[in-house]
Amino acid sequence: MPVNLPLPLASELLAVPGVHIGVAEAGVRKVGRKDLTVVLIEEGASVGGVFTQNRFCAAPVQVCREHLASGAGVRAIVVNTGNANAGTGEDGLARARKTCEAAAAALGLSPEQVLPFSTGVIMEPLPVDRIVAGLPAAIADAAPAHWLRAAEGIMTTDTVPKAASAQVQIDGVTVTITGISKGAGMIRPNMATMLGFLATDAAIDTALMHRLATELAEGSFNRVTVDGDTSTNDSFVVIATKRAAHTPITSLESEQGQALKAAMLDVARRLAQAIVRDGEGATKFITVRVEGGRDASECRQVAYAIAHSPLVKTAFFASDPNLGRILAAVGYAGIADLDQTGIDLYLDDVHVAVKGGRNPAYREEDGQRVMKQQEITVRVVLGRGTAADTVWTCDFSHDYVTINADYRS
Amino acid sequence: MPVNLPLPLASELLAVPGVHIGVAEAGVRKVGRKDLTVVLIEEGASVGGVFTQNRFCAAPVQVCREHLASGAGVRAIVVNTGNANAGTGEDGLARARKTCEAAAAALGLSPEQVLPFSTGVIMEPLPVDRIVAGLPAAIADAAPAHWLRAAEGIMTTDTVPKAASAQVQIDGVTVTITGISKGAGMIRPNMATMLGFLATDAAIDTALMHRLATELAEGSFNRVTVDGDTSTNDSFVVIATKRAAHTPITSLESEQGQALKAAMLDVARRLAQAIVRDGEGATKFITVRVEGGRDASECRQVAYAIAHSPLVKTAFFASDPNLGRILAAVGYAGIADLDQTGIDLYLDDVHVAVKGGRNPAYREEDGQRVMKQQEITVRVVLGRGTAADTVWTCDFSHDYVTINADYRS
Repeated sequence: MPVNLPLPLASELLAVPGVHIGVAEAGVRKVGRKDLTVVLIEEGASVGGVFTQNRFCAAPVQVCREHLASGAGVRAIVVNTGNANAGTGEDGLARARKTCEAAAAALGLSPEQVLPFSTGVIMEPLPVDRIVAGLPAAIADAAPAHWLRAAEGIMTTDTVPKAASAQVQIDGVTVTITGISKGAGMIRPNMATMLGFLATDAAIDTALMHRLATELAEGSFNRVTVDGDTSTNDSFVVIATKRAAHTPITSLESEQGQALKAAMLDVARRLAQAIVRDGEGATKFITVRVEGGRDASECRQVAYAIAHSPLVKTAFFASDPNLGRILAAVGYAGIADLDQTGIDLYLDDVHVAVKGGRNPAYREEDGQRVMKQQEITVRVVLGRGTAADTVWTCDFSHDYVTINADYRS
Repeated sequence: MPVNLPLPLASELLAVPGVHIGVAEAGVRKVGRKDLTVVLIEEGASVGGVFTQNRFCAAPVQVCREHLASGAGVRAIVVNTGNANAGTGEDGLARARKTCEAAAAALGLSPEQVLPFSTGVIMEPLPVDRIVAGLPAAIADAAPAHWLRAAEGIMTTDTVPKAASAQVQIDGVTVTITGISKGAGMIRPNMATMLGFLATDAAIDTALMHRLATELAEGSFNRVTVDGDTSTNDSFVVIATKRAAHTPITSLESEQGQALKAAMLDVARRLAQAIVRDGEGATKFITVRVEGGRDASECRQVAYAIAHSPLVKTAFFASDPNLGRILAAVGYAGIADLDQTGIDLYLDDVHVAVKGGRNPAYREEDGQRVMKQQEITVRVVLGRGTAADTVWTCDFSHDYVTINADYRS
């Protein structure tokens, strides 16, 4: 059961002028499953993307990088679920290209204008012929209102489709932002997440899009983890269709640029946190905040050590305030000159440890009370500087093992 | 159930001249449990130790480092289970020192000649008065034949006591080596493991002991992982009583030094692997060998990425050859210039992936056959050099979650 993650309503998701979405059943892995999604983008849009840093990056990720770098102008996105087309070598690259060629032929585009995305099992051949056969139906289905169908179409072990919308005023003009994401396991994004798409009708210079995508990912998808496994297919794409009638944004530092980025970050963060709330087997949503570091990087390093510790995560699952496990994770996070006598630990409002030792005023029942909650904030104060960073994660339950022991069967 | 780890027989464990062991019930955490162990070492022995690199190292670890550095000559080791005395601040240090003082008073030693060790729950006050009260009974129990009792006395979530013996000829003289270890969770030793003790009657220069301990740990305890959590209390101590009548060893590079080190490494490795075989919830013993690297360090980095991946470990638990997960772990191991097209993957004798893609000759049923075994070797060839390294780990099962969700209750 996802943690405080209601099913999005189709009526809450706002259409983004210039974007049409269609889905179809291609039978990639299972029959009767809407597993093929196309996102059609009208001419003139700005598109930026960031992708996994996994050296075993999937074939579609490699093709996406090439096509974005070509400067051809992205006009279509094709996403299949059921097969990741990763660990598939040269043959996998050929199949990803074939997907682009088929979509380009059907839409009157060049293949470089199509970005391919795949998610699912690794190291199995992509059934590209089924995808090619399914494309006409997906294209025929395309409509501006179909965001929820797309969020459903890209799911794998997700139990809830993930989508969010927001609006912001730029120069008195209403600008719309809508995004979708998927992912529940193999989640420890590095640069981007296992498929996130964010679209706006704002007018932004194409030259700004890569930086915008990177900064949005840094503040959202690059701050969540479920199991520490960085996927081969992580991709985050930002689309700006420029249909809104405000003065085009040419700097992210301008007042308009900052307003838009803040609104887009809000949506991106909701989508990223939705992945954690629906993390495989998750029963709790944990915010890990590390303060008092010399720089944000070491705070993040400590936060991830806590967020990845199987012992910490099983203690959250059990609602057991076995909080020494958090101190142990702080200790092995890799900060060579960390002084344990400078460290304080809080669980929500409960002050658990003072200067590296148990707080004399700490009472087990206070820790117990917080541990029973569905949403918990762990706060570690390193006492060696003023930097801070935050990571979001979930607990580690029997269902994680069940889901991942049964995933392919 | 531990993986191919039979209960050691007291008759298989060889006494080491100069070492006496005694155990007692001190009631540290539970009543009726032999939770206090003393190892008494006759005068003149050489002792070396290596300890956790966790910055939140426990109070007894800090005291051990001081006492070893004092050069006073170690004569006694005191180990309690049930409480780790970690995350306990200045008060924890005082309690660890009080343990040493009490043992020293009872044995006519100085406190610096006593090394304290604790294992169990973190961030709870050590009930040092119960330990002090239990010491006379433990000392009265001391005898050379009590190695198995000691292995039992230091257990926490272990299901099987861990002990091993070997003999080796040095200058025609029979030298005996016996060791014990404990640990099943919070296992990813960095310099040493959660309590390993190795004793020999060989004659070795005291000056060589630290290097000997370090090199033995590097080849054994520092190559195993259960859950990636580096403990606050990892300690590995090597004792040489010099009772054997061979010419004293003054160099680890001499023929005699190499013979002794090889025999000691064999025992240390059996003890380290025993920890994995009895890893919390383990149903399989996995050897991860990475070859063809530029140096051993990057091979080890890749091997640990595989050995720590919850997705890889749950696939082993399920006997599911979902082997793309191994490639994904190789890809995110942090080798920035890794070329996926150079990588081959083997599961025992089955060649799964060639040059980063699925081997055309690979058949799912061959992978399935190996995955069903209790002992499996994963072999990754990086194709960029001649270095290699090996790490031992176990799978990740429902029982791991159960054990760690219930540990304190």
